[in-house]
Amino acid sequence: MSRSDLATQTGLNRSTIRDLIGELADLGLVTEDRGTNSGRGRPSLVARPRPEGAVVLAVELEVDSMTVATIGLGGRIFERVRIVQAPPRTPEDVVSDLERLGTPMIEALPVDHNLAGVGVAVAGVVRRQDGFVHVAPNLGWVNVPLGGLISEAMKIDRVMMANEADLGALAEYRRGAAIGSRHLIYLAGEVGVGIGVINDGKPMLGTAGYAGEAGHTRINPSGRLCRCGATGCWETEVGEEALARLAGISDPEMRADLIGEVTRRAHRGDADIFTALKEIGSWLGVGIGNLINTFNPDLVIIGGFFNELYPFLQEPMKGAANDVSLSAPWESCTIRPSKLGIDAHLIGAAELVFAELIANPSGSGDSTETGAAVLAGNSVIAVSASA
Amino acid sequence: MSRSDLATQTGLNRSTIRDLIGELADLGLVTEDRGTNSGRGRPSLVARPRPEGAVVLAVELEVDSMTVATIGLGGRIFERVRIVQAPPRTPEDVVSDLERLGTPMIEALPVDHNLAGVGVAVAGVVRRQDGFVHVAPNLGWVNVPLGGLISEAMKIDRVMMANEADLGALAEYRRGAAIGSRHLIYLAGEVGVGIGVINDGKPMLGTAGYAGEAGHTRINPSGRLCRCGATGCWETEVGEEALARLAGISDPEMRADLIGEVTRRAHRGDADIFTALKEIGSWLGVGIGNLINTFNPDLVIIGGFFNELYPFLQEPMKGAANDVSLSAPWESCTIRPSKLGIDAHLIGAAELVFAELIANPSGSGDSTETGAAVLAGNSVIAVSASA
Repeated sequence: MSRSDLATQTGLNRSTIRDLIGELADLGLVTEDRGTNSGRGRPSLVARPRPEGAVVLAVELEVDSMTVATIGLGGRIFERVRIVQAPPRTPEDVVSDLERLGTPMIEALPVDHNLAGVGVAVAGVVRRQDGFVHVAPNLGWVNVPLGGLISEAMKIDRVMMANEADLGALAEYRRGAAIGSRHLIYLAGEVGVGIGVINDGKPMLGTAGYAGEAGHTRINPSGRLCRCGATGCWETEVGEEALARLAGISDPEMRADLIGEVTRRAHRGDADIFTALKEIGSWLGVGIGNLINTFNPDLVIIGGFFNELYPFLQEPMKGAANDVSLSAPWESCTIRPSKLGIDAHLIGAAELVFAELIANPSGSGDSTETGAAVLAGNSVIAVSASA
Repeated sequence: MSRSDLATQTGLNRSTIRDLIGELADLGLVTEDRGTNSGRGRPSLVARPRPEGAVVLAVELEVDSMTVATIGLGGRIFERVRIVQAPPRTPEDVVSDLERLGTPMIEALPVDHNLAGVGVAVAGVVRRQDGFVHVAPNLGWVNVPLGGLISEAMKIDRVMMANEADLGALAEYRRGAAIGSRHLIYLAGEVGVGIGVINDGKPMLGTAGYAGEAGHTRINPSGRLCRCGATGCWETEVGEEALARLAGISDPEMRADLIGEVTRRAHRGDADIFTALKEIGSWLGVGIGNLINTFNPDLVIIGGFFNELYPFLQEPMKGAANDVSLSAPWESCTIRPSKLGIDAHLIGAAELVFAELIANPSGSGDSTETGAAVLAGNSVIAVSASA
């Protein structure tokens, strides 16, 4: 964003903007260059986040896999590695894998990089600030101080953690398909199904951080038993298990690459797969319609494997969602696929750590809340005026 | 609340508190008296809201009735009148009834009262600031400038309006069963069923004010046709029509006093009524469980006719809600009946107008956001420090 656009957006005068950009440039967080010229005259200076200025080791923890990436300020992914392993994984296994994978990735970063911390996305309920895992049902963990274990093993002070659906919402809101939205629902779907909600520009986490377990709303009283113990939960109709069942895919090898297998069959024109996807899409739409009536969002972002299968799911999904929604909230809502795709949770995990940095870029602790928001590209960088 | 408690709550020193109370007392909004003595020594001065200092003409508009009340600051109801009439009612009918009922009620107020405005609770989607009704399905209204019509007819400048479930949530949060809650769901149930949500202390209204239409979430795919056109909506299982159907009450006279009739039969020990109430209670619990999983509230308040029938509904309701909820959000949530009962929406309508007064008590328009919150009794009065 140019200096004059920054001045307009922040309401600060140009000399203040110049000083603030100078301060951030000194910290290595921002660079300025001449943008491409769209009109006459010399292109103006454009401030951009500098990815090497702050790098997060971002981690996505799933039942049978772990993805680790180095992500720079502004959302640039330097490197990404995913390993698949047979569950169950203990916290010690996870920490040792992370150390083994993450350390060389950090070493491979540009020499002038600055490691801001570790951010972790978990399918579970966690305390953000120190990464304490209250419960992660799919991992079988209860009360695990994972953040502390990582911090100790890797000698990195700042380790933060959050629920993957909440991070998906954050990532799409900051850098993806939801920029400009104020009332957003992000739908995450793998084995489990959950939502991340942004209400009036702020994450909605509930009284203890458990909000968003929409996968366990009862949507079909005559439905199946869910792994949570209840009957007819949304995820029993739309989760990966439902897809495998409806698609008739039980062979372990095919099951391990379920979405790939389904996609290949769909592209082959397999009629049974279309029937299965239509069924999943319809149930997906019913749940989305319920959410639209309840939250009146301006946007629903379809993430997880629903995003990968979006071309096949969208028609029955939108049909059912329209059917369930009242016309007024339906008309004020757009349904859109994820832009960040499989990287959404990782980028959200990085944003979680960047948010800390952004609140206090100099780390001096004497920043004030009157700091100006300098928006560089899609990235909101709050420049704190040092006291 | 005593001056020293106010000082503790607000972080202001005692002389500032004394000045602010003096300012509010001059405006007639607050009085001070000696509280009852709970310990040794002279009881300290206790500041309380002064009901005559600001009075709202509060209105609750329903399909077949209108309730009008004069409510003073702090929630005191001076007078309340309810009229029942056959629908449909036009906006002109409503304005003329309100004029006829409201004018003598205002005239009957204490001589030194101060009319702050009119507040209206509607089952529909409305713009708060000027009372424009976008849509009120049960009244059959679309795009009615009701606030403007009332303002013109009654020569009262400030006419505000909001959805009844949102106002029920506000009323219980400020003066009822939800004081101290931060993440609240208020359930309103009459013919239609809706929720008002307070998220982290603020009303959740959605992108266009339509949030809270949980009565139209599909909860039973093999259920009945709803008046909204969809099938299996929550309110088809728990609304007044479901109750009348299950209780076998179709006689128009009994139907007009449905809740009274059901209560009488239940007290008589009528087994069929218990079966009907058990069925309603179970479906009520399923929907509440869904909301608990989705929002992770600290409190669910049961309002509307569900509150009137609470003793009969609570057991099957809690059973089903527990069955559907995941253990973590279930354990962080309390379900409690409304404290304000049938007055909840009216008191909410009054609070809507008081909130404007509280934000700027002197009406000088030069108040600042640094004004201190002076809490008198249950009432939060923001004292704005004049610039």
